Amino acid sequence: MGERVYATYWVETAYPLLQAVEALAGEQSSGTFVKVPGETPELKERSGARIERLTELDAVGEPSLPGAGAPKAAAEWRRAEAEISWPLDNMGPSLPNLLATVAGNLFELKQFSGLRLLDLRLPEAFRDAYPGPRFGVEGTRRLAGVARLPLVGTIIKPSVGLSPEQTAAAVDRLAAAGVDFIKDDELQADGPHCPFDERVDAVMRVINAHAERSGKKVMFAFNLTGEMDEMLRRHDRVLQAGGSCVMASLHSVGLPGLTALRRHSQLPIHAHRNGWGLYSRSPAIGVSYVAWQKLWRLAGADHLHVNGLRNKFCEADESVLASARECLTPLFAGAGRGCEAMPVFSSGQWAGQAFDTHARLGSADLIHAAGGGIVAHPGGPEAGVASIRQAWEGALAGRTAEDVAAEHAEFRQALETFGP
Amino acid sequence: MGERVYATYWVETAYPLLQAVEALAGEQSSGTFVKVPGETPELKERSGARIERLTELDAVGEPSLPGAGAPKAAAEWRRAEAEISWPLDNMGPSLPNLLATVAGNLFELKQFSGLRLLDLRLPEAFRDAYPGPRFGVEGTRRLAGVARLPLVGTIIKPSVGLSPEQTAAAVDRLAAAGVDFIKDDELQADGPHCPFDERVDAVMRVINAHAERSGKKVMFAFNLTGEMDEMLRRHDRVLQAGGSCVMASLHSVGLPGLTALRRHSQLPIHAHRNGWGLYSRSPAIGVSYVAWQKLWRLAGADHLHVNGLRNKFCEADESVLASARECLTPLFAGAGRGCEAMPVFSSGQWAGQAFDTHARLGSADLIHAAGGGIVAHPGGPEAGVASIRQAWEGALAGRTAEDVAAEHAEFRQALETFGP
Repeated sequence: MGERVYATYWVETAYPLLQAVEALAGEQSSGTFVKVPGETPELKERSGARIERLTELDAVGEPSLPGAGAPKAAAEWRRAEAEISWPLDNMGPSLPNLLATVAGNLFELKQFSGLRLLDLRLPEAFRDAYPGPRFGVEGTRRLAGVARLPLVGTIIKPSVGLSPEQTAAAVDRLAAAGVDFIKDDELQADGPHCPFDERVDAVMRVINAHAERSGKKVMFAFNLTGEMDEMLRRHDRVLQAGGSCVMASLHSVGLPGLTALRRHSQLPIHAHRNGWGLYSRSPAIGVSYVAWQKLWRLAGADHLHVNGLRNKFCEADESVLASARECLTPLFAGAGRGCEAMPVFSSGQWAGQAFDTHARLGSADLIHAAGGGIVAHPGGPEAGVASIRQAWEGALAGRTAEDVAAEHAEFRQALETFGP
Repeated sequence: MGERVYATYWVETAYPLLQAVEALAGEQSSGTFVKVPGETPELKERSGARIERLTELDAVGEPSLPGAGAPKAAAEWRRAEAEISWPLDNMGPSLPNLLATVAGNLFELKQFSGLRLLDLRLPEAFRDAYPGPRFGVEGTRRLAGVARLPLVGTIIKPSVGLSPEQTAAAVDRLAAAGVDFIKDDELQADGPHCPFDERVDAVMRVINAHAERSGKKVMFAFNLTGEMDEMLRRHDRVLQAGGSCVMASLHSVGLPGLTALRRHSQLPIHAHRNGWGLYSRSPAIGVSYVAWQKLWRLAGADHLHVNGLRNKFCEADESVLASARECLTPLFAGAGRGCEAMPVFSSGQWAGQAFDTHARLGSADLIHAAGGGIVAHPGGPEAGVASIRQAWEGALAGRTAEDVAAEHAEFRQALETFGP
C-alpha cells in the first residue's frame, strides 16, 4: 500500500501545460471525457494519477506532429518534462498492465503534438514479482569463460540463406578464430531452409568439438523466436545439445513471452531489439530505451542490444551510451537485486571503438560484437578477433590507440582498414 | 516452395531511390554492410529480398526525421512507395519472425529519413499455420444474440478505482439499460483494488441474473491482460462463470501471447490496441493499421479497436474507416478462411455517428461503443442505448438523422445533447 509507479514524459502542447498534462493523468487513471457517476473525490484521491513535477522547456512555432488540437489562435507549442505517478494498486506489479498504463492510450491524446516516455521508476513490488535476468553479467562471464575483457562476439552472415551445415562451417571458422560469442541473425530462426533443431545440432557438434580441444566453449545465441510452445521446446533442445545461450527478438515475443521463457530457461537470454527504430526515430513520439529496457530486464533479458558507437544506423553515440549505462545500473537497491543486463554493442563495430567505448562507459562488462570488423580483417578472422582483444587490453591499461598500434600488427592493420 | 511475403513501404531518402531501397532489401535478407564469404549469387537469388515495385512520389527540401545520412550537397529528400518481397523460406509461416523481417532492423537504416510499413500480403501458408479468430463477426453475433444491428457497447467508467461490487453495480445499471456489450477499461485487469476473479464473479452474478430474466446475456469483455499462465487461468474463470468474452491489450501481450491465448480460448477475444499512437502518430515513421491488424487477426483477434468517426483522439476519419474496412476484408480467399474481425468503434461516440459510419463503411458488422453517449444521455442510459439503436435502424433503412429525430425522442435528445 502507498507504493507508486513514476513515469517521466517529454510533451509538446498548444494548450496550457498543466491542463494538458492533467488530461493525460486523468485519461490514464480514473478520469474520462465526460463526468460519470461514481467518479467521487474519494475515488480520484485513491486511484487518480498525480502530477509530481512539471518543468517547462522551450517552445516552437509549429506542432511537431499533425493531428493534435489547439486552442483558437494558438501561436506557440510549449514543451515540458512531466513526471506523473500512479498508485501501484491501479495495476499491481504486472509488466503488461504497467505498459497499458504508462505507454497505452496516451500517445494519441489530442492535447499533444509530441509525447515521449523518457523514464520509469518502479516500486520494489516489481522486483519481487519478476525474476529479472538469471545470468546477467557475472553468469554470462562464467559460462563464456571470459573474466575481464568484453566478450568478443560476432554474427553469422549472410543473415539468411545458409543451411545448418553451412552455418556450422561458419561457426567452425569463427571458433577457430577465437571468438567468445556468436549469434544467429534475427532473420534466422526456424525457416524451412535452416530448421532450428538441425542448426542447433550442427552448430553444437562444432562448438563441442572445439571445447574438447581447447577447454573453451563458444557461447552461441540460438534465435528461438517463435510461438510460446516452440520457444520453450527450442530452449530445451539447445540445453540438451550443450548450448549456453538462446536469443529472442523482444518485439516479436512480447513481455509475457519473455517472462515465460525466462521462468523456463536455464540459459542466458540474448535479447534483440529489432524494431526499436519505431520507438526511437522520431524526436516527437516514442519511448526512450532508458525506460524501455527496464521492462525487459525485469522480464528476464540477460543481454540487451544497445547499438554501438559510430554505428551504421541513425542513433547518436550519446544515446547508445545512455542505454548501455542504464543496462548496468541497478534497478533496485540491494545486492543481487539490480537486474543488471550485459549491453551488446554492435553495428559497424571493429577494434577501434574499444577506446572510447571504455572511456565513456567506464566498464568492460559488455559484448563487443563485430561482423566485418572480424571477418573482413585483412589478416583473417583470427587477426580480427586479436585486434579487438588488443584494443581492449590497451584501453583497460589506459593506453591509446596509437600505443596499441605501435605494438600489435593486428590492431595496426585493423586501424588501417577500418579506421577513419 | 516459391511462395513469397510482400510488404509495401513509404520511404523518404536523400540517396538515389533504388539504391536506398536495395539497402533495405539487402539488410533484411542476405545482405550485410561488408561483403562476406558465403554470400554467393546462388544464395542471393534464393534468399535475397526482391524489389517488386518502386513508385516515386513527391520530394521535400528537408528530411522528415533527424539522424539519416545524405550524400554531399543533398538538396532533396525523395519519397516513394516500395513493394519488397521475401521468400517464405526465409522465415517460414511464423508471425514473430515475419515481424522481425518486415518491421525489424529497418526503421533505423541510415538511408531513410522516413519509413512506414503500409501493407502486407501473406501467402496461404500463414492461414494454414494460424488459427485466426474463432468467433469473428458471426460467432460474436450469435453469442451476443444480436442479428442485424451493430452491438451497442459501453465501457466501465471510472476506468480504475471501482471495487468488484461497484463494477457489478455499474454493470447492473447498464444491463438494465439494454446494452449488448460492456468492456473493462484497459487500465483495469487484476489490480489489488479490483482483483480479476472477484470482478468476474460479481459481474457474472449480475449478468446471469439479467439473462435469466430477459433471456439475453450481455457480453462482457473481461480484461485478462497479464502473464501467460495468468491469462489462460483467467480465461477459464470467465468461461466457468458463464462469461462470453475476454479482452487483451495487444501490445502488452505480444503476438505469441495472443496466439497462445487463442489456441486455448473458447471465448471471443476482444483486442485492445492501446499504445497504437506509437505506430501511427508520426507521418514519417511507423506502421499502418491496415498492415498491423492482419497480424493480430491471424493470431486470433475476434474484435479489433479502430477508434471512431469524430473521435477524441488524433486520428482522422479516413484512417478509421480504412482500418475498419480492412478488418472486414478477407485475408485469404475461400469461405470461412478470411479471418475477418469485428471492428470496434469507440471514443467520442454517440448515436449520431451511426449514419456516416454506415454510409462510409457499408456495413453494420461492428461494435458501436459509447461511454458518455450512453451514460450521459439526459434521459438516462436506457435512452442512450435506445438512441443508438434508433439511429442504426434509421441508417440501415436509408433514412437521415433528421427523419429519425422527428420520430424518436431519445435520438432527438441525443442530437440536442451531443450533436454539433
